[in-house]
Amino acid sequence: MHYDVVGLGTAAHDLIGVASEAPQLGRKQPISTWIEAGGGPVPTALVALSRLGARTCMIGAVGDDSYGTRIIHDLAAEGVDICGMQVHPGNSHVAFVLAEPGSDRRSVWFRTDPSVLAAVQVDHALITRGRALHLDTYTGTAGLQAAHWAREAGIPVMIDAERVRDTTMDLLPLCTWLVVSANFGRTVTGAEPAAAAQELHERYGQMVVVTAGEAGSWCAHNGDLFHTPAFPVTPLDTTGCGDVFHGGLLFALLRGDPPRAAIRFASAVAALKTRAYGGRAGIPNLAEVEAFLQG
Amino acid sequence: MHYDVVGLGTAAHDLIGVASEAPQLGRKQPISTWIEAGGGPVPTALVALSRLGARTCMIGAVGDDSYGTRIIHDLAAEGVDICGMQVHPGNSHVAFVLAEPGSDRRSVWFRTDPSVLAAVQVDHALITRGRALHLDTYTGTAGLQAAHWAREAGIPVMIDAERVRDTTMDLLPLCTWLVVSANFGRTVTGAEPAAAAQELHERYGQMVVVTAGEAGSWCAHNGDLFHTPAFPVTPLDTTGCGDVFHGGLLFALLRGDPPRAAIRFASAVAALKTRAYGGRAGIPNLAEVEAFLQG
Repeated sequence: MHYDVVGLGTAAHDLIGVASEAPQLGRKQPISTWIEAGGGPVPTALVALSRLGARTCMIGAVGDDSYGTRIIHDLAAEGVDICGMQVHPGNSHVAFVLAEPGSDRRSVWFRTDPSVLAAVQVDHALITRGRALHLDTYTGTAGLQAAHWAREAGIPVMIDAERVRDTTMDLLPLCTWLVVSANFGRTVTGAEPAAAAQELHERYGQMVVVTAGEAGSWCAHNGDLFHTPAFPVTPLDTTGCGDVFHGGLLFALLRGDPPRAAIRFASAVAALKTRAYGGRAGIPNLAEVEAFLQG
Repeated sequence: MHYDVVGLGTAAHDLIGVASEAPQLGRKQPISTWIEAGGGPVPTALVALSRLGARTCMIGAVGDDSYGTRIIHDLAAEGVDICGMQVHPGNSHVAFVLAEPGSDRRSVWFRTDPSVLAAVQVDHALITRGRALHLDTYTGTAGLQAAHWAREAGIPVMIDAERVRDTTMDLLPLCTWLVVSANFGRTVTGAEPAAAAQELHERYGQMVVVTAGEAGSWCAHNGDLFHTPAFPVTPLDTTGCGDVFHGGLLFALLRGDPPRAAIRFASAVAALKTRAYGGRAGIPNLAEVEAFLQG
């Protein structure tokens, strides 16, 4: 089996409650909607790729609990190949997300078990079976190993970086497409998105995209710097927008779109996702993205 | 089959996250412990009764979702007879409880589906198969019907009342043991616990207990008013303490303990429950309560 994208990263399960009134701590408050969905930057990007029509495979670890079963099941149900998913003793990553209607504010309380993710095994054969490798910053030495193998095999590597973790700075020089949050850009360069994209591009010589939510994104590529606005939508829920932006960008780059077109495509995928609560329910298929871009 | 206590009320599933740092809204924060447990005032009282050695049966409704399956399973695993549990189309009651270590403060966000509880069917034969009936204030006309049948059959009725709901004030005159929260006492009488117990006792002529957490409880009975202090414990988690207080009180009253001894027994059950996170894990068995009362 060969894949368009092999992903390696944290796989999570999100419980999303939509508040019916302004949240307060120390109170007992009703929520209007309770949604459960798989989460994690890389798995959600792969789900977006899968809906767009790409072949994907996920490598990651879950704990030996009911959430682990659910996480793997939900990926398989989206057509993501789960042959790289592993179950290790411990707890799966699970989060309660308190969403507020009419506001982008989210409160997230999450449980994670570092020993589960640290136990993840990567396999050279599987890493080199993709046309691209997609990584987050949570996978430590396994992520580094996978990025090295991909580079050796001439396979491009995209990184989704939101925070700097133990191996993150070693991982960046191995990446072909550095697609990072404004917060990450600020942490690493001290600069705002446009200047951060420019500086990271100069430092690593690769295509850099710094995303900034509704402010759009800045891309530095081949000595060029350009801004792409976000599509003006009234979001119901922005959970997972960054994740699916990466999925859309990988899809467009792998089919040969030039950077400007690829980023516009990715922005459309992210904009459409905001139609529904949860990180995955609103992810569009290819026909929907094309209609949106033409509309 | 005959039972010591038949219960009718809301059955819930609680997801409890213990915060690792001071909770703030709008943040992404780790939690150290994630516990799942069945909840709801009446089911948790029945679990306490069951651990103490009583035969119990639960009447209630859950939605046709995975939480409903879990709620029923967890009751059955505790030895509570689930022959009165019903599955109706809709959502089960589920709550995320954010606990804070070293503090009694809890933030609760819950989803409930009134149509599920409104669909609950009560059966005369089952109601009259118990030596006592235990009710909360959520069951509307079904609760009223059950209380009427119990009274006709000479079966004592205990009510666990925290808030006034549509049928609550009609239910109170049908109850033998009114065991209500300080907040409920304040709402109905405008008075603090001691005076509220006295006034409710005068109004309904029945035994009234007003519970006030670590301040203990006030009981008005046969023209007498007395205070019972809570046992001095350092609680890990007070979730469900009120529920298991009711279970302990029913157990002691049904075996013939006089009110003072019965309330002391119930206070011990509640104190022991605080040993563990979640509404049920810490509930003691009879030997543990006796050892605690002697120690």
